Amino acid sequence: MSIPVAPKIIPIILAGGTGTRLWPMSRSSRAKQFLTLSGKHSLFQETLLRLASDPRYGAPIVITNEDYRFLVAEQALEVSVPLATIMLEPVARNTAPAIVAATLVADGLEAGALVHVLPSDHQIVVDHAYRAAIDTAVAAAGEGALVTFGIKPTEPATGFGYIEAGDALASGAFAVKRFVERPDAEAAQSMIADGGFSWNSGMFVFSTTHFLKECRAHAPDIVSAVEKAVAGATKDLDFLRLDSLAFAAAPNISIDYALFEKTDHAAVVPAAIDWSDLGSWDAVWKAGAHDQGGNLQRGPVTLGAVHRSLVVSESHHVVVDGLEDIAVLASEDAIYVGRLSSAQNVGAMVKRLKADSATRSLTETHRTSYRPWGGYSSVLLGERFQVKRLFVHPGKRLSLQKHHHRSEHWVVVRGTAEVQVGDQTSVLRENESVYIPQGSVHRLANPGKIRLELVEVQTGSYLGEDDIIRIEDEFGRR
Amino acid sequence: MSIPVAPKIIPIILAGGTGTRLWPMSRSSRAKQFLTLSGKHSLFQETLLRLASDPRYGAPIVITNEDYRFLVAEQALEVSVPLATIMLEPVARNTAPAIVAATLVADGLEAGALVHVLPSDHQIVVDHAYRAAIDTAVAAAGEGALVTFGIKPTEPATGFGYIEAGDALASGAFAVKRFVERPDAEAAQSMIADGGFSWNSGMFVFSTTHFLKECRAHAPDIVSAVEKAVAGATKDLDFLRLDSLAFAAAPNISIDYALFEKTDHAAVVPAAIDWSDLGSWDAVWKAGAHDQGGNLQRGPVTLGAVHRSLVVSESHHVVVDGLEDIAVLASEDAIYVGRLSSAQNVGAMVKRLKADSATRSLTETHRTSYRPWGGYSSVLLGERFQVKRLFVHPGKRLSLQKHHHRSEHWVVVRGTAEVQVGDQTSVLRENESVYIPQGSVHRLANPGKIRLELVEVQTGSYLGEDDIIRIEDEFGRR
Repeated sequence: MSIPVAPKIIPIILAGGTGTRLWPMSRSSRAKQFLTLSGKHSLFQETLLRLASDPRYGAPIVITNEDYRFLVAEQALEVSVPLATIMLEPVARNTAPAIVAATLVADGLEAGALVHVLPSDHQIVVDHAYRAAIDTAVAAAGEGALVTFGIKPTEPATGFGYIEAGDALASGAFAVKRFVERPDAEAAQSMIADGGFSWNSGMFVFSTTHFLKECRAHAPDIVSAVEKAVAGATKDLDFLRLDSLAFAAAPNISIDYALFEKTDHAAVVPAAIDWSDLGSWDAVWKAGAHDQGGNLQRGPVTLGAVHRSLVVSESHHVVVDGLEDIAVLASEDAIYVGRLSSAQNVGAMVKRLKADSATRSLTETHRTSYRPWGGYSSVLLGERFQVKRLFVHPGKRLSLQKHHHRSEHWVVVRGTAEVQVGDQTSVLRENESVYIPQGSVHRLANPGKIRLELVEVQTGSYLGEDDIIRIEDEFGRR
Repeated sequence: MSIPVAPKIIPIILAGGTGTRLWPMSRSSRAKQFLTLSGKHSLFQETLLRLASDPRYGAPIVITNEDYRFLVAEQALEVSVPLATIMLEPVARNTAPAIVAATLVADGLEAGALVHVLPSDHQIVVDHAYRAAIDTAVAAAGEGALVTFGIKPTEPATGFGYIEAGDALASGAFAVKRFVERPDAEAAQSMIADGGFSWNSGMFVFSTTHFLKECRAHAPDIVSAVEKAVAGATKDLDFLRLDSLAFAAAPNISIDYALFEKTDHAAVVPAAIDWSDLGSWDAVWKAGAHDQGGNLQRGPVTLGAVHRSLVVSESHHVVVDGLEDIAVLASEDAIYVGRLSSAQNVGAMVKRLKADSATRSLTETHRTSYRPWGGYSSVLLGERFQVKRLFVHPGKRLSLQKHHHRSEHWVVVRGTAEVQVGDQTSVLRENESVYIPQGSVHRLANPGKIRLELVEVQTGSYLGEDDIIRIEDEFGRR
C-alpha cells in the first residue's frame, strides 16, 4: 500500500532587490540578501536553509536580476540547496510582475500548487509561533485565501505598512479589513493602541490557481504581459531568462497595490514571529545579540566605554571608546560612522558618493567580484601594476581570452591549475607559476577537486577589467 | 678682503621619542615624528626643512634610537637635508643624557659652538615672532645664558609645564624665576591671569661651553657617564653608536630637572609663536586648518552634518554623518573612533590592545616596514602564502640570505633588479620574474638609478619574518 504524499509547497524567493541601506556592506553589485550579517551564511542562504529544513517545502524558485545570477547560483551551491530554477528579470518591475511570473512557472511545475512567496533578506527565527503561522496560512490558502503574514508590532514603527484584521475565518486566519501604507508616528501609535493591526511582512501563501484567477480579474494587463514574457523565456545554463520586451511592458507596481488591496480574498495570519526586515543598521542592531553594554559587535573590534552601539568590521581592527548610540561599519574599502538611531540616513550619504565619479564605485562594487567560474579581488593597485587574488571552483574553466594592454604572472598558491598559453597547455601545482605575455591567447581551468587559488600580478599601461577579448566562453559571455 | 663668516648654529634634533598618543597612526616602530600629519612631509622632515631654510643653521645632529636609525636616514635623504651625524642612544635615558651627548659631539665639531636643541615632532609656523624669538635667544646665549623658549599661552592648558619670567636681561630675554610642573586647572588659570608665565616648549639655545660648564657643576654624574659613552662610541655606516654600558650608567632624567631648574643662568624668551606639540589628536585638530564646519579632514573622506571633528584616513574611504566632537582615524590596518575632546584617552585603549597577543602588533608595527635597503609591506596574508610589496633604493643590496620554510616568486613591476640565486646572477626588468626555491641562497639588489619595486609571492608552511638566515649583510645585521 502506498501512502499518498502531500504535494510540497513551492517557495518563491524574491532575490532581485537592490539597495544600499546597509552601506558600506551592501552595494548595487551585492545587495543586502547576499551579505553575511551574523553567523556563517548570507541572508539569502539563511532563507534557503530555513526552507530546506522543513519537509513541507519543495525546491525553491528564485527570481532575481541579471547581475545577481551567478551570486545566487554560487550561494545556493555553497549551502547545497538545490533550486527548481533561477528566473531572471530582464528589467526591474517591482514585485507584482515578478511574483506573477514565478507563480506561472510554479503552476507549470505543478498545476494548482501551493506557493510561499518570501523576501530573501529578512531575518526570521523558526520557533513554535512561526510554524503555527505557516500551518494556519496553508490551511487558509487551501480554502482559497490569498494569505499575508502580519507581524505583531513591538513598537509604533513608521517604516512598515500595516494590515488590519477583519472577520475570523475557519482556518484561524482573518479576512483583511484594510491595508495601511507607512503611517506617521501618530497613526502608528493609534494602530498599536487599537491592537487589531499588524506589520505587513511581504510574505504570502496562496494556491497558484486562486492567485492567478484573482490577478486576471484585478490586474489583467500584468498577467497578459508576464504570460508573454514566460512563454518567450529562454533557458541559459541554469537560468530562465524572461523575454525582455514582454516583461518590460508589464506595469511597474507592487503586488500589494496591484492585487492584495483589491481582492476580496486577502487574508492575514497575525503572528508574534521573531522577525526583522533588517532594513537599516538600526534594525540590524535590534535584531542581533547584545553584549553587556547593549552593543552588537562583529569582526575584529575592541570597545572601551561604548553603549547601545553597532560596530562591525570586515577588515581593519576597529577601536571605539567613549561613545553611545554610534554605528561604525568597516568594509573592505569604506567606513561609515554615524549615530545608530539615525542610521537610515546612510542613504543620503550614499547618494552623495554616487554623484561623485571619484567615489561612485564605492556604492556599486565590492573588492571581491563573483564570476560563474569563481571570482577575484584586487589586493594591490599600483602604477602600471595590479595584484589580484583569483579563485576557481573545481571543474570550472574561464573563457579563452587575451588582453591588449597587460601581461600577467600567475602563481598557484592552492590547488591545481590547467593553463593554456598559445598552443601550449600545462598543469601547475602549488608554488608553480606561469607568464602570460601581452596579447597572447590564454585560458585557465581548475581540473581538480578542490578550490584553485592563484595570485595574479598584472603589469601594463592599462589594467581595466574591460581589456578582455573573449574568444570562447562556456557561460555565454562576450 | 674676505668677509668673516659668523659661525653657524648647530641644531640638535631629538628624534628618539616613542609613544602611541597618535595611535593608530603612531606605533612603537614608527613614532609621531615620522608621521605625515599635513602636507607632504613628516614632522621630522618639516623640522629639517625649517632649519635648512634658515642660513644661520649648520647641518643638524640627530639623536635617536637604534630602531629608528634607518627611518631617520631615509627621511633626511628624501628631503635632501644633509645631517652632521646620526647619534644612536643604546638605551632610553630621557632628555638630559641625550642632550649632553649631542652637545659634546657638537663641541667636538666646533668648540664653543652655539646649539639649538629642539624636538622633532612639534609644529611651528615660521613667522616674524618666531624669527625674532630666535634672534633674542641667540643674543642671550651669546651672553652666556641657557635659553628656553616660552610659548605665550592661548588657554589654561594642564598638559604643559610653565616658566615664570623674572628680570629682563640685556638681550631682551628674561631670567627664569621658576619652572612649574604641569599644573592643575586652577593653578593654570591663575598663571594665565598673572600673565608672567609661558609654556615650556622643550627648545633650548645655548653655547656648548656654558652648557657643559653648568652641567659639570649641577649634574656631574651625567657628564662623566656620557663623556665615556661618547669616547667609546663606534662609527657604523652613517651612525655614531654611543657606548652602551657607559650610556646606560647615566641617570634617567630630563634636562629640565637635571639642569634648568638648578642653574642660575637659565633664561626664557617668551614669544607668541604659532606652536603645537601635537601631543594628542585634539591638539592635531587645534593646530590644523578647519573647514566651514570646524572639521579637520585629511585623506579620502566624505562628511555629512559633522562639526568640530577630526577625520583622517590613510586607507579606506571614510564617511561620517550626524556627529560632532568626533575623532575618526583610519590607518592601513586599524581604526579609532572616539570623542575628539577625550582623544587623550586613546592611550588607555592602546594599553588594552598591547595586553592582548592577538592585537599587540597593532600598537607596534605598521604594515610598511623600513629597512636600510628600502622596505616592504604585506598586502595579502593567506593560508600558506603571503603577498608582499618590496621596494629597494637605487644602488642598495639586501643581505645574502636563505629561508628554511618558504619559497618566493618575485615579479619586477618597476625598475631593474639584480638577482642572485645559488651561483647564478641575472638581471630582471619590468614584467620579468624569478623563482627562489625553498632553502636556496639568494640576494636582491637594485643596480639602477630609480627605485626598484617588486611583488613577492611567498609560499610555505611558515612565513614569519624570523625565517631568515643572513649569510652576508652590508648593514651589519644578522
